Amino acid sequence: MSDQHSHDHNHKHRKQIVNRLARIEGHLRSVKEMTAKGRDCSEVLLQIAAVQKALDNAAKLLLKDHLESCVVDAVHHGNQDQVIADLNKALDNYIR
Amino acid sequence: MSDQHSHDHNHKHRKQIVNRLARIEGHLRSVKEMTAKGRDCSEVLLQIAAVQKALDNAAKLLLKDHLESCVVDAVHHGNQDQVIADLNKALDNYIR
Repeated sequence: MSDQHSHDHNHKHRKQIVNRLARIEGHLRSVKEMTAKGRDCSEVLLQIAAVQKALDNAAKLLLKDHLESCVVDAVHHGNQDQVIADLNKALDNYIR
Repeated sequence: MSDQHSHDHNHKHRKQIVNRLARIEGHLRSVKEMTAKGRDCSEVLLQIAAVQKALDNAAKLLLKDHLESCVVDAVHHGNQDQVIADLNKALDNYIR
């Protein structure tokens, strides 16, 4: 299963992506808290939209990193078919 | 500022929305952890897409709740203009 496999090559932006996801997690926690407190629905919706936009940007950075490292690496090692099939599946799910 | 205002009328699904947001927060935490561990990029992208879909569903439920309670309530109290302006702004941001 490809989802059991982990990478040993470097990802230039991994730490940056993890930091972004941590920040988005904190943002989402505050959205949850404002919802629990009964804050204005329009304001909650705006904040959910901001979380979605931040996730889009994190996904974009991840994808760029993936293209620069994993895909190039896979081509060098001759196992590009599985990597490209996995990436296509992920893109089909991500961009609707 | 409309974002300072809080609601005292009931939202049928508020608890359900808060629970969903809590679950999404946990999901996002696990996505962050799998990214930190260097798990397959395609798999991370699939999970980010799943988080986005769950957020869409939470936003949809919030919006339905808002229409059923806040908007109807605002019309009864004659202050629908501000509520509808806020909602339109939120929709413009949410649906691009």
